[in-house]
Amino acid sequence: MNPKQVLLIIGGDFRQLEVIRLLAPELNKIYLIGFEDASISYENVIKVKWQTVPLHEVDSILLPIPGIQDNRIAESTFSKEKVLLTKEMINKTKPNSTMYSGIITPYLKQIATETNRNLVALFARNDVAILNSIPTAEGALMLAIQHTDITIHNAHVLVLGFGRVGKTVARLFSAVGAKVTVLVRKKEDEARVIEMGLAPIFESVLESKIPLQHIVINTVPTLLLTSNLLKKLPSQALIIDLASKPGGTDFAAAKEYNIQTLWALGLPAKVAPRTAGTIIGKTLIELLRTE
Amino acid sequence: MNPKQVLLIIGGDFRQLEVIRLLAPELNKIYLIGFEDASISYENVIKVKWQTVPLHEVDSILLPIPGIQDNRIAESTFSKEKVLLTKEMINKTKPNSTMYSGIITPYLKQIATETNRNLVALFARNDVAILNSIPTAEGALMLAIQHTDITIHNAHVLVLGFGRVGKTVARLFSAVGAKVTVLVRKKEDEARVIEMGLAPIFESVLESKIPLQHIVINTVPTLLLTSNLLKKLPSQALIIDLASKPGGTDFAAAKEYNIQTLWALGLPAKVAPRTAGTIIGKTLIELLRTE
Repeated sequence: MNPKQVLLIIGGDFRQLEVIRLLAPELNKIYLIGFEDASISYENVIKVKWQTVPLHEVDSILLPIPGIQDNRIAESTFSKEKVLLTKEMINKTKPNSTMYSGIITPYLKQIATETNRNLVALFARNDVAILNSIPTAEGALMLAIQHTDITIHNAHVLVLGFGRVGKTVARLFSAVGAKVTVLVRKKEDEARVIEMGLAPIFESVLESKIPLQHIVINTVPTLLLTSNLLKKLPSQALIIDLASKPGGTDFAAAKEYNIQTLWALGLPAKVAPRTAGTIIGKTLIELLRTE
Repeated sequence: MNPKQVLLIIGGDFRQLEVIRLLAPELNKIYLIGFEDASISYENVIKVKWQTVPLHEVDSILLPIPGIQDNRIAESTFSKEKVLLTKEMINKTKPNSTMYSGIITPYLKQIATETNRNLVALFARNDVAILNSIPTAEGALMLAIQHTDITIHNAHVLVLGFGRVGKTVARLFSAVGAKVTVLVRKKEDEARVIEMGLAPIFESVLESKIPLQHIVINTVPTLLLTSNLLKKLPSQALIIDLASKPGGTDFAAAKEYNIQTLWALGLPAKVAPRTAGTIIGKTLIELLRTE
């Protein structure tokens, strides 16, 4: 890594504290905007305001992990002031500066295009997404223990999707003793589910397995839990939807059938911000090193 | 089982609803005291008051699972009225009637002696205690996910005790990916911990392992976590004490060192009342059958 690197962190949550802890020894300087209420004490980590930050020094910018929406606000857990991000600000950073966020929102994409800066979505990386699926799955497990009146041990759990999150969720619930069924689309995923000692099913027979489930965990952001399927779910069942917008559940129908539904997003920041911050921090170190 | 059996249930929590569901088809009659607010609809299950219950019919009595304290109140989740249990009431039941509770409190012991009735502590049975340790361990896991800022996966977890609860807790946390160390006293327990792929330690070296731990889970009702040990625990560590009174933690010292401590009792009734009720119900069926 070039030790002369200067990083600007704009807004964020508890994960950023761990990122700062990991990056402070590695970088020349870190400027923080929106961290008034955070207690941070490294010589080279400096709390600033937009008015005072020397933007021309800035090589890299870490934005809030959930990105920035069209209201332009960089959400911060550690500031009562509204921190706004505009293209004018980014334009004043070094011409080859890079912006980092968890996901790319339309507003961030627009800014990156208009300022001709690089924009990196950390969660688009498989390594980050896989590591981040661990706190996601643990958050889902916590919710499942909390919101059912049965043990997860011996419960029938249906996992929809066998991607980066689905694999981890299936493994974790099975490790705890649940009887796990996994909805798959590909023959190779069916094989992997069999290897894991779990029960694979294809969508064609999904309907017949629905009435047996105590818990359904969705990981796919397309409508899978239709009104027709929800109608067949036992009324005591719990749905945990982990999929980003629009989710995979007909939430209105679930409400109509009186099925408890939790649409649980951003679990890593809630249940394990320090671990989630470590994942981001270590990845950033690697990315800055190869820049 | 003698189908002419008459059971009286006095007070209780959500577990009793599952007990009623399992026992209603098996028994002649079930009388309920302290269930005004519960919706129950079996022909042979009858809500009564002390004034109206035909005590001379009663063969068996299910008391609240945590027993009854010296204030004589049979705690009930489903009644706003105070339900009192006195020896006069028990004296009116059949001379060979049996009382069932989870644990034997001094007051229950006194009543049983004075009325010359049998008193059975369900949780004193190994089978019940082992099955009940599953929701206990899941409750501890839920608390650990909730009250730490790291994942349980890869966390260093120290389990104190390797009895009925300790074994389950060690297995569950290890299954989730924690690095589990178990305090043992016997060579055969050391061997079993090794077989499980975990790290056994004896008390003589406990002190040296304390500074490495993220989570300490105590299952032994004797003071193990002394002020001297707590001093060496990282301040970010979490203690979950599952041991019944007096617990195994110097709680005052833990507070002084600013260590987050959760003394979590009665977890099965909180996190999995239906499963916990099934365990009790099935055991009762077996006990009534062999009476």
